Amino acid sequence: MNLVRVATAHGPRHADLQDGQLLWLTGDWALGFRPTGERAALGDTRLLAPVTPSKVVAVARNYAQHAAEMGAEMPDEPRIFLKPSTSVVGPGDAVAIPPRTTRVDPEGELGVVIGRTLTRGTRDTVMDAVFGYTIVNDVTARDFQKKDGIFGRAKGFDTFCPIGPSVVTGLDARDLALQLHVNGELRQDGRTSQMHFDVPTLLVWISSIMTLLPGDVIATGTPSGIAPIVAGDVVRVTIEGIGTLENPVVDREDR
Amino acid sequence: MNLVRVATAHGPRHADLQDGQLLWLTGDWALGFRPTGERAALGDTRLLAPVTPSKVVAVARNYAQHAAEMGAEMPDEPRIFLKPSTSVVGPGDAVAIPPRTTRVDPEGELGVVIGRTLTRGTRDTVMDAVFGYTIVNDVTARDFQKKDGIFGRAKGFDTFCPIGPSVVTGLDARDLALQLHVNGELRQDGRTSQMHFDVPTLLVWISSIMTLLPGDVIATGTPSGIAPIVAGDVVRVTIEGIGTLENPVVDREDR
Repeated sequence: MNLVRVATAHGPRHADLQDGQLLWLTGDWALGFRPTGERAALGDTRLLAPVTPSKVVAVARNYAQHAAEMGAEMPDEPRIFLKPSTSVVGPGDAVAIPPRTTRVDPEGELGVVIGRTLTRGTRDTVMDAVFGYTIVNDVTARDFQKKDGIFGRAKGFDTFCPIGPSVVTGLDARDLALQLHVNGELRQDGRTSQMHFDVPTLLVWISSIMTLLPGDVIATGTPSGIAPIVAGDVVRVTIEGIGTLENPVVDREDR
Repeated sequence: MNLVRVATAHGPRHADLQDGQLLWLTGDWALGFRPTGERAALGDTRLLAPVTPSKVVAVARNYAQHAAEMGAEMPDEPRIFLKPSTSVVGPGDAVAIPPRTTRVDPEGELGVVIGRTLTRGTRDTVMDAVFGYTIVNDVTARDFQKKDGIFGRAKGFDTFCPIGPSVVTGLDARDLALQLHVNGELRQDGRTSQMHFDVPTLLVWISSIMTLLPGDVIATGTPSGIAPIVAGDVVRVTIEGIGTLENPVVDREDR
């Protein structure tokens, strides 16, 4: 399945997007999705973030080359932080640079979408709780991150978590190419196989701390190649087998 | 209003608890609450967390004496972090100490409950978005907080955010006594007037970063008097004009 969420006159609806056709789905993250049998052409339908997570759990420093460029050691266990649901936007939505920050960076990441409630999962069972995979751009105000030490502000601004364009099921995500371009220039070029802590390890770790709910998203860390963006830029994150998440950058109106 | 949420045979319901009587309410955080006209005796009804926030935004170091006991300077602007919705439990629910941590501390805090969506509020308007006040226990695995530097793990465990027993409206929260007892022993004894950043300042600050939604909770920081808890302890946080939030402490079954 290639799950998308689209704006309709009757509110957001989920669909399985196949060859430009929206195969409408009924259901939700808790109950699961199934086809209604109806379909429509994608046309100029607006795609929304495919998930509306109760929480986005993000992993700091999960690629050795990114840790090195940040001047940091790789941790001996995962370090996690939360991005609020209010930071989530969809494909094509603008990332808005707030006032006062002097440096905002995009971070392309593989997103793991949870399909079943998961508490203290074991390595043998955690992958059964995965619904599928998506793309996350973990936008970060780098100066605030350094100043605050904790990430609530730097990672939490409205629009700082583009997700999409779809959630792909049945994908083997262990070795996918991940690239981030800004205005067509290649900035990040990694593979998910370079993760220091792999997806099962992260799911065991995180679910030993907090219960993961259907629709929650794990942002699995970013490869090296961090550099700032400014208003007018367009950021594209591409992950093999999933697609491309594209977002323009604007200044917030009070900047 | 003294808003509570109670377990019933038909699922959780909100009520206004007055003199041991539950005045049933209809509505929700987005639409507001109004009395149905029906009532019931509280009796042995189980109180749940009065709110189910989409996010709990917590303020680090907002009382000078607490900063001092942590060996830290007061910041020149608020530092914030998030606690996940999955960490929220209600009055009487157990706080479960997870494996491996060597020190878990309770932190009694005034909770501000948001009643209206708030984005980039101004000092003149932010208080209109406040629904009322509650009590939050910002339970913290102190060793993990120090090790990780970021607070996703240390503050994010399931059961690490007791909230309640009620949300009180119409309260002037600028100078309320706040005490935390463990097994009857006084540990924290402060006043909300000792906050370094007051509630309007925090709401302006936080809403300049992230949109606050109805039912969201701001945990406004803890006074001095931090010391650990262990299984078998009972923690009571009392705030003048609100009530007492009491939670027993247990070891998680895998500890």
